[in-house]
Amino acid sequence: MRFFSDNAAAAHPAVLDAIAASNRLDTAYDGDEWSAKLDAAFSDLFETQVRALWVTTGTAANCLALAALCPPHGGIVCHRDAHIENDEAGAPGFYTNGAKLILVDGPGAKVAPDAVTGAIDRIRKDVHQVQARALSITNATEYGLAYTAADVAALGETAKRHALRVHMDGARFANAIVATGASPADVTWRAGVDALSFGFVKNGGLNAEALILFDTGLADEVLVRRKRAGHLLSKGRMLAAQILALLEGDLWLANARAANAAARSLAKAAGDRLVYPVEANEVFLRVSADEAAALRAQGFDFYDWGVGEMRLVTSWDQDAEAVDKLAAAIASL
Amino acid sequence: MRFFSDNAAAAHPAVLDAIAASNRLDTAYDGDEWSAKLDAAFSDLFETQVRALWVTTGTAANCLALAALCPPHGGIVCHRDAHIENDEAGAPGFYTNGAKLILVDGPGAKVAPDAVTGAIDRIRKDVHQVQARALSITNATEYGLAYTAADVAALGETAKRHALRVHMDGARFANAIVATGASPADVTWRAGVDALSFGFVKNGGLNAEALILFDTGLADEVLVRRKRAGHLLSKGRMLAAQILALLEGDLWLANARAANAAARSLAKAAGDRLVYPVEANEVFLRVSADEAAALRAQGFDFYDWGVGEMRLVTSWDQDAEAVDKLAAAIASL
Amino acid sequence: MRFFSDNAAAAHPAVLDAIAASNRLDTAYDGDEWSAKLDAAFSDLFETQVRALWVTTGTAANCLALAALCPPHGGIVCHRDAHIENDEAGAPGFYTNGAKLILVDGPGAKVAPDAVTGAIDRIRKDVHQVQARALSITNATEYGLAYTAADVAALGETAKRHALRVHMDGARFANAIVATGASPADVTWRAGVDALSFGFVKNGGLNAEALILFDTGLADEVLVRRKRAGHLLSKGRMLAAQILALLEGDLWLANARAANAAARSLAKAAGDRLVYPVEANEVFLRVSADEAAALRAQGFDFYDWGVGEMRLVTSWDQDAEAVDKLAAAIASL
Amino acid sequence: MRFFSDNAAAAHPAVLDAIAASNRLDTAYDGDEWSAKLDAAFSDLFETQVRALWVTTGTAANCLALAALCPPHGGIVCHRDAHIENDEAGAPGFYTNGAKLILVDGPGAKVAPDAVTGAIDRIRKDVHQVQARALSITNATEYGLAYTAADVAALGETAKRHALRVHMDGARFANAIVATGASPADVTWRAGVDALSFGFVKNGGLNAEALILFDTGLADEVLVRRKRAGHLLSKGRMLAAQILALLEGDLWLANARAANAAARSLAKAAGDRLVYPVEANEVFLRVSADEAAALRAQGFDFYDWGVGEMRLVTSWDQDAEAVDKLAAAIASL
Repeated sequence: MRFFSDNAAAAHPAVLDAIAASNRLDTAYDGDEWSAKLDAAFSDLFETQVRALWVTTGTAANCLALAALCPPHGGIVCHRDAHIENDEAGAPGFYTNGAKLILVDGPGAKVAPDAVTGAIDRIRKDVHQVQARALSITNATEYGLAYTAADVAALGETAKRHALRVHMDGARFANAIVATGASPADVTWRAGVDALSFGFVKNGGLNAEALILFDTGLADEVLVRRKRAGHLLSKGRMLAAQILALLEGDLWLANARAANAAARSLAKAAGDRLVYPVEANEVFLRVSADEAAALRAQGFDFYDWGVGEMRLVTSWDQDAEAVDKLAAAIASL
Repeated sequence: MRFFSDNAAAAHPAVLDAIAASNRLDTAYDGDEWSAKLDAAFSDLFETQVRALWVTTGTAANCLALAALCPPHGGIVCHRDAHIENDEAGAPGFYTNGAKLILVDGPGAKVAPDAVTGAIDRIRKDVHQVQARALSITNATEYGLAYTAADVAALGETAKRHALRVHMDGARFANAIVATGASPADVTWRAGVDALSFGFVKNGGLNAEALILFDTGLADEVLVRRKRAGHLLSKGRMLAAQILALLEGDLWLANARAANAAARSLAKAAGDRLVYPVEANEVFLRVSADEAAALRAQGFDFYDWGVGEMRLVTSWDQDAEAVDKLAAAIASL
Repeated sequence: MRFFSDNAAAAHPAVLDAIAASNRLDTAYDGDEWSAKLDAAFSDLFETQVRALWVTTGTAANCLALAALCPPHGGIVCHRDAHIENDEAGAPGFYTNGAKLILVDGPGAKVAPDAVTGAIDRIRKDVHQVQARALSITNATEYGLAYTAADVAALGETAKRHALRVHMDGARFANAIVATGASPADVTWRAGVDALSFGFVKNGGLNAEALILFDTGLADEVLVRRKRAGHLLSKGRMLAAQILALLEGDLWLANARAANAAARSLAKAAGDRLVYPVEANEVFLRVSADEAAALRAQGFDFYDWGVGEMRLVTSWDQDAEAVDKLAAAIASL
Repeated sequence: MRFFSDNAAAAHPAVLDAIAASNRLDTAYDGDEWSAKLDAAFSDLFETQVRALWVTTGTAANCLALAALCPPHGGIVCHRDAHIENDEAGAPGFYTNGAKLILVDGPGAKVAPDAVTGAIDRIRKDVHQVQARALSITNATEYGLAYTAADVAALGETAKRHALRVHMDGARFANAIVATGASPADVTWRAGVDALSFGFVKNGGLNAEALILFDTGLADEVLVRRKRAGHLLSKGRMLAAQILALLEGDLWLANARAANAAARSLAKAAGDRLVYPVEANEVFLRVSADEAAALRAQGFDFYDWGVGEMRLVTSWDQDAEAVDKLAAAIASL
């Protein structure tokens, strides 16, 4: 019974069906009829004109966005625990040609306006120090916290004051939307977000993510950068088809709801073992080594998170019975 | 009746089946059981120990290889018509951090040893000029010519004499192997090739290519670079499964045989209109604008190739009836 | 008697005096009183408001300009024989983070508008090919030809039509100005030039070149890039002082006049051996190997230029007697 | 009476004399007789065969070394207060093509072996996290502390254990040598240092620094990188001559002794106001805003260092009378 990742879960059957349905000759790259529908589909969802590009990984989506928002000699403010800082092998440095990540702290990997202002204030305004040009936040955060529309709007204001462009890493955007009930528009462009990495792979997709550009003026450059990074697949229609299948009938929301609900069940059982409030689909628990071993002995698979903590991640297809069993096992620790 | 690309053809049904069969939770990235089989599968095929990595595009495979073979301040000798020079949006410059492509000429986009030596000889051996560090050839070439094992061995000798590492862009490697009957080993590492981009997408794959490292010492670095470029997909098992399905029972060879045969049929009909000998699955013809229009009027779709030429590309699933019709139409021009 | 370089000539005594005069504590970097005068001095010279920065090499000046004028994914049109292509060790690739040099031909390393248009027309306007974003010309060219104001204006028009920014490598700008009698303004910004590498080192300076930004909006970025490239010297006053000394009383023009005059003397003696018209301070001659050897035997030092040609470069301090001797020796070959 | 920088001090008269003496035509770049002497001069000083290159700034020396010691996808462990992290505008990111600085803490900007080990231990050994490949320390540190030979040897051991190459930023190497009495060899290559930025500009030079490669195998690559970065000056003899003049008769040590002595005088007067022990030529004092204002009112010029601290830097030519006056003024605060 595996609780270690939404990343490696199966793709939703509707996604495989969509791939099969698009498996016939069409124009290569993104010249096909499926890819052509993405802008409209996401413009509907976000209630404004956007440009939407498929890519195959969150790292590619994040770094293409950052490269468009920050020059090589600029800095990107982000949380010390952000995926772009810790888990992308320095990809931001590669894509931006050497921009600097300027790290801030905050509980649950959440960035607060004061933290941004503090970071900016510590930079001397001369050519010897790297000046911040962008802000990147993760929603839901690496610890499963979701930003409300008001949270993001406050950051957007701060960013504007310091002339920072804003990127949102939405690897778990669906889970965040379900958690807060915010409208996709309110938590992004209306709050000052310029570009969003909209994750589908952790939420039922096979290998398609979407990069949403609210600043549509960035699109021409990003399209070139995508090709230049080797991310323009020749049969792109089968990526677009995945995304359209997940948007269809709000399947993306249904999937995220299932994952979040499973996490909530586990959280309820965990009580005051919780390290962070459980808002999306991640559960961090305080456990002793013996307790962790006891859970593993019962067939549960998960990551240790440093000393004395464990991480559970639920996915769209989390087996309900397994969740119940784990909840019971946690409760009886 | 479309003859403009193998790139945008459908994926083979066995490939979709393999994706479906691997669509269950396993370890993320390349920690799964399918990915784990690639090294062995390709080591068998190449009769030596290799390291094999999946990526999603030929551009990524090419440029990851080039970045491992050439430092930022080095040069890569390649043909003026090479894909890396003309059709990858400068991706080699991005991946290598600014290495220089040193262009040579040669009929049919084929590189000859003398051309390489000539290019090297023109470079002053000082710090003011970029020194060549690698050679990249395309097999089959952009104009559908295949290198024999002897061709490559002669280049390998030349490369060795000038201390150049050797990369082969094998976007149509299958077609080349079928064309020459060379063993995969003879035309690559036995002839001095260090790294091969082994294409599957043009030959029945959906979105999986293989990067084969004959110099296995490069693997650790390339694995990091792949992640850093955003090309480490979380559900990599569904890429590995595609490749394994195409290797299974030599399906890759069967697919290439079908494409090459279709091209040969067209070539036979074309007679002395042929611009280049037809060895793989591309056919370049001399046609007037009126002739091209006439073919289009009969429902045939293809690319013009500059003034007075047209390009036909056949694929693994080329409709036999359409091939016959086009052959007849060409013959009766 | 050395005729192989203006690059390695001595610095003018006035330059050493200026260094000595500025050798006292002042604000570091470019915060000193000498550096502060550069903008005004060059704005006077160019009859418009410019920003002027000292750097220590022409390569740095060229590449800082190119990086500001062309994005990493863009292309820079230049002559096949341009210094940035042949003699800067790939520095443009480093500074621009991988932009592509798009090479054109033309006699005497001079770029003509048609050549630019031809190069642009050969580029497919899609994301697969690198799109040109800048034009770089060298004045005087690598073969000693000078652009007239009309020449540059025609190129500027062409550049504008194709949305190319324009850079002029003026390593021998002084010699070009003397050759054509053009006003510095007419041959640069009035003709569409955005940035000029204004060379002093080949013309009596020790180690100071000026980068002139006619598009003053580029200055903030270029100032940061200069620091980031390690080109912000702490005692910058001693670079600014060199430049001011050479501008003072038009010493830069006097120096260039002397060098050009020496070249003209040699050209007169050379008659129809001349490969190119001699406009600035370089003289290319057709000579046999025996003739070259005979000149060397008489104590003249110069570069062979491929087979059957030699290159003479004169400098501001060229010994008049040596020039006469060489002229006589050439005439009597 | 200025105490804010050694960076902007005058050059030593012997340095200007050396420039004047080398001001005659010789081979360009580093082909001249002065440049040719550097390897031998530094090999003598360091009691082993080294390669020594002139550059014009410490940033260039540091970053050329780092680029040779760390691949683009690697990390460089350094102190949070290191110059490469704080005061080089992201130049390490530019030169290394995006390597990551991995920051550690330690009093007085000094790096301890445990801090290095701690940083390495926090990195997961997988492709998702940037792996450390180099260590960079500053001697004397940004707060004026000097590493003993034993300090460096302990770090060298630690670095070796983790396969890190070692760079020393010796912008104030002379002051450190004088402070500890260590032999240049003991505190560098014998302790495991691979490359040293040997500063001269803060110690009487005009615009020449030396990059010392103890791993002489790096030289060929660094020579190319220097050119590629625009740091190969055409009249390099006038940089080499500066360095030789400062090495001559141990002028570099005499200069550093003078600066350190001035700092010691100030330190003595400062008593328990000192923030760090004064070992080299920097003095950090705790002062109230009123006290700082009082000193300024008496004509002393210096930097505030955050709130409640001030920084004094002494130079080789510090006026003795001014030092006495400032010492008295501090004592009587």
